[in-house]
Amino acid sequence: MKSLLVLGSTGSIGKQTLDVVRAQAGALRVSGLAANSSWAQLAAQAREFHPRFVAVIDREAGARLAPQLPEGTSLICGPEALSEICRVAEYDTAVHGVVGACGLAASVAVLERGKDLALANKESLVMAGAELMEIARRSGASILPVDSELCAIFQCLRGERLDRVRKIHLTASGGPFRDSDPSEIEQSSRERALAHPTWSMGPRITIGSATLMNKALEVIEVHHLFGLPLERIQVWIHRQSIVHSMVEFIDGSVMAQLGPPDMRGPLHYCLFHPDRAASDLKGFDLGLFSRLSFESVDAARFPALQLGYDAARRGGDAGAVLNAADEIAVEAFLAGSACFGDIVRVVASVLPLRASPRHGVAAALLADRDARRLAREALERIHASKANQQ
Amino acid sequence: MKSLLVLGSTGSIGKQTLDVVRAQAGALRVSGLAANSSWAQLAAQAREFHPRFVAVIDREAGARLAPQLPEGTSLICGPEALSEICRVAEYDTAVHGVVGACGLAASVAVLERGKDLALANKESLVMAGAELMEIARRSGASILPVDSELCAIFQCLRGERLDRVRKIHLTASGGPFRDSDPSEIEQSSRERALAHPTWSMGPRITIGSATLMNKALEVIEVHHLFGLPLERIQVWIHRQSIVHSMVEFIDGSVMAQLGPPDMRGPLHYCLFHPDRAASDLKGFDLGLFSRLSFESVDAARFPALQLGYDAARRGGDAGAVLNAADEIAVEAFLAGSACFGDIVRVVASVLPLRASPRHGVAAALLADRDARRLAREALERIHASKANQQ
Repeated sequence: MKSLLVLGSTGSIGKQTLDVVRAQAGALRVSGLAANSSWAQLAAQAREFHPRFVAVIDREAGARLAPQLPEGTSLICGPEALSEICRVAEYDTAVHGVVGACGLAASVAVLERGKDLALANKESLVMAGAELMEIARRSGASILPVDSELCAIFQCLRGERLDRVRKIHLTASGGPFRDSDPSEIEQSSRERALAHPTWSMGPRITIGSATLMNKALEVIEVHHLFGLPLERIQVWIHRQSIVHSMVEFIDGSVMAQLGPPDMRGPLHYCLFHPDRAASDLKGFDLGLFSRLSFESVDAARFPALQLGYDAARRGGDAGAVLNAADEIAVEAFLAGSACFGDIVRVVASVLPLRASPRHGVAAALLADRDARRLAREALERIHASKANQQ
Repeated sequence: MKSLLVLGSTGSIGKQTLDVVRAQAGALRVSGLAANSSWAQLAAQAREFHPRFVAVIDREAGARLAPQLPEGTSLICGPEALSEICRVAEYDTAVHGVVGACGLAASVAVLERGKDLALANKESLVMAGAELMEIARRSGASILPVDSELCAIFQCLRGERLDRVRKIHLTASGGPFRDSDPSEIEQSSRERALAHPTWSMGPRITIGSATLMNKALEVIEVHHLFGLPLERIQVWIHRQSIVHSMVEFIDGSVMAQLGPPDMRGPLHYCLFHPDRAASDLKGFDLGLFSRLSFESVDAARFPALQLGYDAARRGGDAGAVLNAADEIAVEAFLAGSACFGDIVRVVASVLPLRASPRHGVAAALLADRDARRLAREALERIHASKANQQ
């Protein structure tokens, strides 16, 4: 039986992980659960799965959670709780569904112990991909990508050699603005930006699918995870989100992984890797698969994508800068204090301002802090200039 | 350097194999060439590739070929020449591009020697799949399927376990009649039936793509080659011939192999298997891949498909009967002595008449002979009844 540590257990990936565990009782068990502050949900999960450890970052949530935990479950609480549980719990695979730069330290903690990391936290590879890969190599841990596109590539590479890859074809749904005019996108509302045509996901990643910043981050992840030069990574708009990505080999053969847009698919794959286990998840479905299309990405409509290539080309801490600036700009957009076009504008202005060749986890965390400040300043400037124009 | 024996070197598969050898000089060499009767082409090929042996079935062609062969090349000639060259030549892989039931004995000869068989001759697996698989198992030989659909499945199974397969999704272009009315198909002309929308192939296989008999034969091949029960093999119409086939695993994940419709793709794969070697063959191509579709097969339009399932379910020598009856009926259609609808009619009448539970190569050859006779008789009866109606 495989034991799991679930980081971000009350979020979208965490809850879907527990769905898979429920469906696979007898094959998977939960030895640890961690969340930021949702203590009531965490308590219910602990009573259902009886993990040895539960971690919560928020101290007040911890105080409320403590009396609710079942016998045999210990609480870890405080700002370092996420990394702490990675170090003390016993598990075969950590499922990392925490969103944001705050997830990086936990990735390091898991990989340093030589444990497998089923990684949904994009920021880890974006911020410090080179160092994470190096830690994993040293400790013998595997990074299993939960993200549907990366997981697709990972599956296409089963039984294959990386030096036999000609190209990786990453797919993007194109989000709600794939047919919109650039000028219309600029002033688009929160509601329209959040209306993803195929996937149901958290708000930041949904906005990232509308700007294509999400794909920009994936370009960086692919670059690190599969050690592939940027000119061999190509993005296509694929509206149906059925072909999750493709690998083209040096002989011209293209392998693709397909499936309905359901995160439980890649999760299930990562949880049982390197084997495959039976699930009741749908496979080929004529209703969903009947029409599939691929299109070029319009750079005028989606300027964010180029920023991903730029950041990856700069290397060093540029990924961390890109990510942090985007997190702040998306927050501002969701809070109504920035327009949609400001997101990319802010990121594009912060990237050359702060990116440096320093790399590694410490440099990434520093860059993250600075880029957030710079992004806030950029937003203020934009705000002020708009106020002046009125 | 891998050495190849090319069976059917003057046919479509054989010539494309030699194209790949030309493009991969230094990695592949030809140690044997075999053809039926095209002595002039064979002579030119021998002078170019300097094989140790050349085989030709037709004695008269042999007499003309002998003086044209370069020094160091020995001629094998006569009705057994195909199997003979398989037994005497030295090679790593035999590429078997001979069309028809006459190719079965050569497959047996290659596999009995424990040599890898890059198999484009459909009839081998259709007629005696169970026995060929058993011979390969005993001798340690591999059957590498050259057929684009089977090769796609073979590639999707890299690094995977056969007992983890939920379903195999075979694709069929649907041929020229995919939108035609059944009554219109019945009386269709030779020219229309030979106008394949996506692939350029020999006449029998092109007609087999119009009836879908070709796909019926592939269902039997898949059943034997991958040991999969028939209810797990599903056929879809895929007009673009880009997705060459798909494998759905027990976890719901679907792997597909894609590429432009070019036989050099699967050939190249088989020649370098288990490695992949660089080629200048096209991979992902937006012009070709931009729109992909899947549809159900209309049983009224394509009754041949069901005959493939029927034959596989009967087992024994039914595959040989199906194939032989189809060869004769297609010949008659191409000669203008039968209408298009007669092809399936003849096969459907001969199958229950002759299929028996006897299996193995000898039984298959006997069934093949009998089924040809029965098919000719069926054609005569149809002819007579048409003459009566006029």
